[in-house]
Amino acid sequence: MVDITQKQSTLRTAIAQAVVKVSSENTITAIKEGKVPKGDVFAMSKAAGFLGVKKTADLLPDCHPLPVEHCTIDYKINGLEITVEILVKTFYKTGVEVEAMHGASIVALNMYDMLKPIDKGVEIHHIKLLQKTGGKSDINRT
Amino acid sequence: MVDITQKQSTLRTAIAQAVVKVSSENTITAIKEGKVPKGDVFAMSKAAGFLGVKKTADLLPDCHPLPVEHCTIDYKINGLEITVEILVKTFYKTGVEVEAMHGASIVALNMYDMLKPIDKGVEIHHIKLLQKTGGKSDINRT
Amino acid sequence: MVDITQKQSTLRTAIAQAVVKVSSENTITAIKEGKVPKGDVFAMSKAAGFLGVKKTADLLPDCHPLPVEHCTIDYKINGLEITVEILVKTFYKTGVEVEAMHGASIVALNMYDMLKPIDKGVEIHHIKLLQKTGGKSDINRT
Amino acid sequence: MVDITQKQSTLRTAIAQAVVKVSSENTITAIKEGKVPKGDVFAMSKAAGFLGVKKTADLLPDCHPLPVEHCTIDYKINGLEITVEILVKTFYKTGVEVEAMHGASIVALNMYDMLKPIDKGVEIHHIKLLQKTGGKSDINRT
Amino acid sequence: MVDITQKQSTLRTAIAQAVVKVSSENTITAIKEGKVPKGDVFAMSKAAGFLGVKKTADLLPDCHPLPVEHCTIDYKINGLEITVEILVKTFYKTGVEVEAMHGASIVALNMYDMLKPIDKGVEIHHIKLLQKTGGKSDINRT
Amino acid sequence: MVDITQKQSTLRTAIAQAVVKVSSENTITAIKEGKVPKGDVFAMSKAAGFLGVKKTADLLPDCHPLPVEHCTIDYKINGLEITVEILVKTFYKTGVEVEAMHGASIVALNMYDMLKPIDKGVEIHHIKLLQKTGGKSDINRT
Repeated sequence: MVDITQKQSTLRTAIAQAVVKVSSENTITAIKEGKVPKGDVFAMSKAAGFLGVKKTADLLPDCHPLPVEHCTIDYKINGLEITVEILVKTFYKTGVEVEAMHGASIVALNMYDMLKPIDKGVEIHHIKLLQKTGGKSDINRT
Repeated sequence: MVDITQKQSTLRTAIAQAVVKVSSENTITAIKEGKVPKGDVFAMSKAAGFLGVKKTADLLPDCHPLPVEHCTIDYKINGLEITVEILVKTFYKTGVEVEAMHGASIVALNMYDMLKPIDKGVEIHHIKLLQKTGGKSDINRT
Repeated sequence: MVDITQKQSTLRTAIAQAVVKVSSENTITAIKEGKVPKGDVFAMSKAAGFLGVKKTADLLPDCHPLPVEHCTIDYKINGLEITVEILVKTFYKTGVEVEAMHGASIVALNMYDMLKPIDKGVEIHHIKLLQKTGGKSDINRT
Repeated sequence: MVDITQKQSTLRTAIAQAVVKVSSENTITAIKEGKVPKGDVFAMSKAAGFLGVKKTADLLPDCHPLPVEHCTIDYKINGLEITVEILVKTFYKTGVEVEAMHGASIVALNMYDMLKPIDKGVEIHHIKLLQKTGGKSDINRT
Repeated sequence: MVDITQKQSTLRTAIAQAVVKVSSENTITAIKEGKVPKGDVFAMSKAAGFLGVKKTADLLPDCHPLPVEHCTIDYKINGLEITVEILVKTFYKTGVEVEAMHGASIVALNMYDMLKPIDKGVEIHHIKLLQKTGGKSDINRT
Repeated sequence: MVDITQKQSTLRTAIAQAVVKVSSENTITAIKEGKVPKGDVFAMSKAAGFLGVKKTADLLPDCHPLPVEHCTIDYKINGLEITVEILVKTFYKTGVEVEAMHGASIVALNMYDMLKPIDKGVEIHHIKLLQKTGGKSDINRT
């Protein structure tokens, strides 16, 4: 694990994305109308995502534990694709990009898990970092 | 999860309480004399409570992880009621009241779990915040 | 930890309850209309509760780990009181009553945590076991 | 959480896949020659993946905890793409497909985390289920 | 992770030991008289040990998760040496020896952590398996 | 848990050691040549050790959670003995010696777990602190 004891804390932000593709318009309707038998897909996946972001360093050996100081999770529906966008912020010595990507993957997996009984064709596409600020270099792929 | 990146760290304290009511004087005697078969109820529940305080952000999605910098757990016996009082302190950007309440609930549940074999009538009453200092407003209900 | 190696697996159920009391009708309205800033209180607390039930043996030293095979969480609003009712089932050698009570306490604490910014007077009352079946004796306090 | 108390245990298998795409041939060479500064990428990610598979029910609220009874993780390199294939097996009442997909995502994220210092262009593509057996219906997309 | 799906469940037991050596008779006295400032060393370390046994598969990648169905922890004082003996039992497809050894190490580390403020010379000696039964071969080194 | 709210953060380092003794030269050869069936023993145990260091406060009740800011794990082979040396650093209000010792014990246990199928005589000797700096007093036993 890289030595960050001598680094200064600065504001770090990261935005990551996951795309969940369902196989039928009925699935989208069930989500929107709150008729998925396992419950409210977006709210429960948001809860799972927040916890996932905070557990990143518990799962990835080389990842520094850090104080997650802000997190938002949003969903956009476009046809059969649901885009999950997650923002993570901290004021610390290292960045939060892996935390954001882990959060995005947990949200997507939880949607898959909740939708499985009503849609066998759900797929998770492209988990990627859209943006990061703070640290040596910024990234912007939005 | 609320954005606290721009907040200043200040001293935060919280005291929470849980009341565990047993159904027989024999239970109180067994606790005091160290004769509960599962072991020392107060010491083991204190261990569970310390760990519980530290795991609060692992269980509550919207709760910021924070450095727990002090914790004490005390017990008062009054008739059939055992009052658990837990103090949590940190020097951070957000408060520790939910941590104190979670710790109090874990101590109470662990007492319930350890006493179950000898007392089927244990009840957990009123988990509440007694006091908090630091942050926008103090609370004092002691 | 009690020796259960020689016990037979049987169906075990437990229903526990927690009562969350808010201080204003506005809080109830905000929950119902989905206007609590932190998100959907009932759905997110259900997610926290499911995870909490599964983590019981991680928090209580003397508690056997067991396969949680069914869980539902329901809410009833009555004036300023919200009653959380949680059902847990398994087919195993020991019961799920502590799991149900831990789940109820986590749901209640998460509601407290999410409502805190809009209502400083939320209280958690009486976490209790309503019913259990399976094992040496049934309990029914409903 | 769906009620599985009355289901029979049967053999369940699932194979999931994640594709990690690096941006340079140098990254592939560094992995193969064991010159990635953070350590052996494949072995350490396998360790993370095994732990990830076992923690699935800790992260996804609606997912039943289950005894993971077999797991293998393999890597195939094809140009700049590394395909992670993970097999999970159990003998239980419910399937392991979400466990396999979670494991695949953790392996991929850990590779991303370990490669980040030497390759800023790593991407995670398509986390998907390739095969499942046991349960109501088999799936085979290999 | 080895494939155990086809194995039969049998009774498995394991006894492991850790030796904690303190540097002064005063430390032993403080433990016996309950005067260690951090609390009751034996009871709190027993709580930590029970939780540690249950978390073994969370920490060791290749270790199968299993239902811990019995656990006891005992202490023997002999001069400056405290011997921790831990018994673990399950009825499952694989053994509990690593669980017993992990539990022994956690008990020993917790004693070290609690005694540190009053004794800088505490050492942990020889964590070893004393006995196992069940599985292909028994071991008895007591 | 001791009150550290008023302490200043300083650089803290700790080096701990565990000695793993195998029973046959063949085991050493299998490790070196990457022929242990469960996988690469040193790399996978390093992954387990990093995670173990970060989880110390999750397992030891009285231990303050702290930001692990650096960690390295090295192995030295001398005949049948493998010495694990682990360095942990942080910039915080309390030390990392227990974290280093916990990490050393997890690395050793994981080696034991991975080698068990090919060597029934693996033993874990002497988990000890070699060095610490920062805090009231330094220790150097190297």
